Amino acid sequence: RQRILVTGGAGFIGSNLVDHLMELGHEVIVLDSLFTGTKENIAHWIGHPRFDFIRHDVTERIMLEVDQIYHLACPASPLHYKYNAIKTIKTNVLGTLNMLGIAKRTGARLLLASTSEVYGDPLVHPQPESYWGNVNPIGVRSCYDEGKRVAETLCFDYYRQHHVDIRVARIFNTYGPRMVENDGRVVSNFVGQALRGEELTIFGDGSQTRSFCFVSDLVDALIRLMNTEGITGPVNLGNPTEFTVRELAELVRRKLPKSGPIRYLPPTPDDPGRRQPDIHLARTVLDWAPRVPLEEGLDAMIADFQRRGIGSRPVA
Amino acid sequence: RQRILVTGGAGFIGSNLVDHLMELGHEVIVLDSLFTGTKENIAHWIGHPRFDFIRHDVTERIMLEVDQIYHLACPASPLHYKYNAIKTIKTNVLGTLNMLGIAKRTGARLLLASTSEVYGDPLVHPQPESYWGNVNPIGVRSCYDEGKRVAETLCFDYYRQHHVDIRVARIFNTYGPRMVENDGRVVSNFVGQALRGEELTIFGDGSQTRSFCFVSDLVDALIRLMNTEGITGPVNLGNPTEFTVRELAELVRRKLPKSGPIRYLPPTPDDPGRRQPDIHLARTVLDWAPRVPLEEGLDAMIADFQRRGIGSRPVA
Ligand SMILES: NC(=O)c1ccc[n+]([C@@H]2O[C@H](COP(=O)([O-])OP(=O)(O)OC[C@H]3O[C@@H](n4cnc5c(N)ncnc54)[C@H](O)[C@@H]3O)[C@@H](O)[C@H]2O)c1
Ligand SMILES: NC(=O)c1ccc[n+]([C@@H]2O[C@H](COP(=O)([O-])OP(=O)(O)OC[C@H]3O[C@@H](n4cnc5c(N)ncnc54)[C@H](O)[C@@H]3O)[C@@H](O)[C@H]2O)c1
Ligand SMILES: O=c1ccn([C@@H]2O[C@H](COP(=O)(O)OP(=O)(O)O)[C@@H](O)[C@H]2O)c(=O)[nH]1
Ligand SMILES: O=c1ccn([C@@H]2O[C@H](COP(=O)(O)OP(=O)(O)O)[C@@H](O)[C@H]2O)c(=O)[nH]1
Ligand SMILES: O=c1ccn([C@@H]2O[C@H](COP(=O)(O)OP(=O)(O)O)[C@@H](O)[C@H]2O)c(=O)[nH]1
Ligand SMILES: O=c1ccn([C@@H]2O[C@H](COP(=O)(O)OP(=O)(O)O)[C@@H](O)[C@H]2O)c(=O)[nH]1
Repeated sequence: RQRILVTGGAGFIGSNLVDHLMELGHEVIVLDSLFTGTKENIAHWIGHPRFDFIRHDVTERIMLEVDQIYHLACPASPLHYKYNAIKTIKTNVLGTLNMLGIAKRTGARLLLASTSEVYGDPLVHPQPESYWGNVNPIGVRSCYDEGKRVAETLCFDYYRQHHVDIRVARIFNTYGPRMVENDGRVVSNFVGQALRGEELTIFGDGSQTRSFCFVSDLVDALIRLMNTEGITGPVNLGNPTEFTVRELAELVRRKLPKSGPIRYLPPTPDDPGRRQPDIHLARTVLDWAPRVPLEEGLDAMIADFQRRGIGSRPVA
Repeated sequence: RQRILVTGGAGFIGSNLVDHLMELGHEVIVLDSLFTGTKENIAHWIGHPRFDFIRHDVTERIMLEVDQIYHLACPASPLHYKYNAIKTIKTNVLGTLNMLGIAKRTGARLLLASTSEVYGDPLVHPQPESYWGNVNPIGVRSCYDEGKRVAETLCFDYYRQHHVDIRVARIFNTYGPRMVENDGRVVSNFVGQALRGEELTIFGDGSQTRSFCFVSDLVDALIRLMNTEGITGPVNLGNPTEFTVRELAELVRRKLPKSGPIRYLPPTPDDPGRRQPDIHLARTVLDWAPRVPLEEGLDAMIADFQRRGIGSRPVA
């Protein structure tokens, strides 16, 4: 049994991870400011003797005694991270610095939830971990992309300078139960729109691609990476099956026939044209590969959205 | 007459800038931790009624009332910025954040001394400002390269979010009087080695290129950029005349015949292969171009090194 800190544990990926860690019998501390996460996501654990929730902002220092840190706290959808870009940079830099400070002091192992956005609009396809990326340093997405890049730099500098035991995961687009209905990300947007009988909004011509990983597969990978010895990463984690945004929209419409038609809107700035993980490294060192195909994951997500009443009540 | 803050004003570029600003009749405040700078560089102004020196670390908050901020504080040579990589990131991120905080509060205009290193090992040659760069996010140079990239991001986010009046200069390799003798940078290394009758050390085969700008040209450009309306940058500032490192070594040997021979050492990791600024933008909007050719600038630098006794006394 380990004492495990999950920052951002009230969010989408974090709360799914917490469920798994609790089921494995660990002591779990969630540290979350509830900026984009909700207490609902962890409500079923509140009061459990092995569980603690701390409402705290990672940009502020905090003293905790733990064995492992999953550092996920950061707004993840463009809508949220652009809302206060300066805060997003602070969360990535000061938040990661503080968590590395805890890791350094306690000897805990730290896993950083980095992102495929460190590759920017990639010129190499699919993206292996050795690719240095193509990121605009001064654009409207930079607070997130550059913030995560420098969070990775910090991890590696704490590793080199203070021998902090790090794991860097580069997470590709992930979807599943507990996504926020209106957070602007494409899978949740389309499913929400379809359930409400609205038009599905495509930014640009829909030919841009993404590779969507179901959250249970991702959580499995994060836990494997954390508990594998002798590897710092970065390791790509994602589902390599690539779809165009148009294909995704069509799939959602087939599943939810009451959906409105597709509506094409202007493209968003600096929107990457293609994205697909090269997961050779994860296959080899973690003995991991995603198992849930998009068809099946979408069904689970639709069921979750319906359970939450999305589509059968007015939009918040 | 303006109240001008120069962070890093006791360093190489900073102190040359301070001389110019003082000569123009401004009130100048130097804020410097003396990590790589020295009081010697500004000794001639100490006690002057229009001059103040504050020994302070930019990573700590400070209250100052100013009209313009030249934000240069940051170790600039690989030797120094790799010495404490975590500190280098903090200087770039927290230092820039604090200076932007002052600019936001006082309405001061802020010029960031960014660097050609934001282009990394460039795949586009010469480098225009629109190039997004090829930077390793997790290497030993990343603390500097990624640190400066995120400093630029911060400037643009303060510009977009709080309308802070910013100027971002991307400075290419600069050399001249007051460089530190043993800071590992190529021009000062070669001149110092040659004056001491030592071998000139080339890392790699010497075919890598750099474009060297004399410091008076650069100071002129910084002042123009600061005082030009309606432009945020980034603006490349540098001398577009490209030399291989081997050519530079040979030039130094011709000028200082008592120099030892060239000695080839293993290449350093992530060393950019080519670097040359595209200065079309600076020519157009600042009406600026460098005037001092390398031959002439080297003479001034050699004279300065000789005046400081380099080569005629034992190495510190
Ligand atoms: N979902 C994806 O497709 C994806 C892809 C790549 C990377 N990631 C990364 O995974 C992590 C989790 O993403 P998610 O999809 O679960 O997003 P999410 O928004 O659901 O979760 C982020 C959580 O962090 C919390 N948080 C934000 N700022 C905070 C701060 N300053 N202090 C404390 N808590 C804070 C939020 O309240 C939220 O609970 C993020 O770091 C994200 O960058 C996600
Ligand atoms: N010289 C070049 O070729 C070159 C090229 C590109 C960019 N730049 C940038 O120009 C600026 C000045 O470079 P330089 O060549 O004069 O280097 P330098 O090392 O001579 O000057 C840097 C100054 O900043 C001070 N400093 C460092 N960390 C500090 C901190 N935390 N708080 C307060 N002061 C601090 C140092 O003491 C020093 O006086 C740097 O930002 C550098 O990144 C220089
Ligand atoms: O238990 C801890 C240990 C450190 N930190 C913070 O983590 C950061 C980095 O810590 P470190 O000890 O590496 O940095 P230093 O204090 O040397 O700057 C600092 O801002 C600390 O305030 C923290 O919040 N909790
Ligand atoms: O309602 C939406 C939301 C997103 N997208 C597009 O879907 C892709 C994935 O967007 P998301 O924000 O989910 O993830 P990211 O861009 O961070 O990979 C991008 O090309 C978006 O422009 C879209 O066409 N319609
Ligand atoms: O005169 C000032 C104003 C601000 N700051 C610092 O600059 C940073 C950014 O300031 P801002 O007001 O933007 O940030 P906030 O306080 O909202 O985080 C903060 O860490 C402040 O401590 C400073 O050192 N001097
Ligand atoms: O004694 C030296 C110092 C530097 N260099 C090389 O000269 C170039 C410029 O190095 P510097 O550190 O001056 O600047 P930067 O790499 O930051 O452009 C690089 O290719 C270095 O490997 C060299 O060959 N010998």
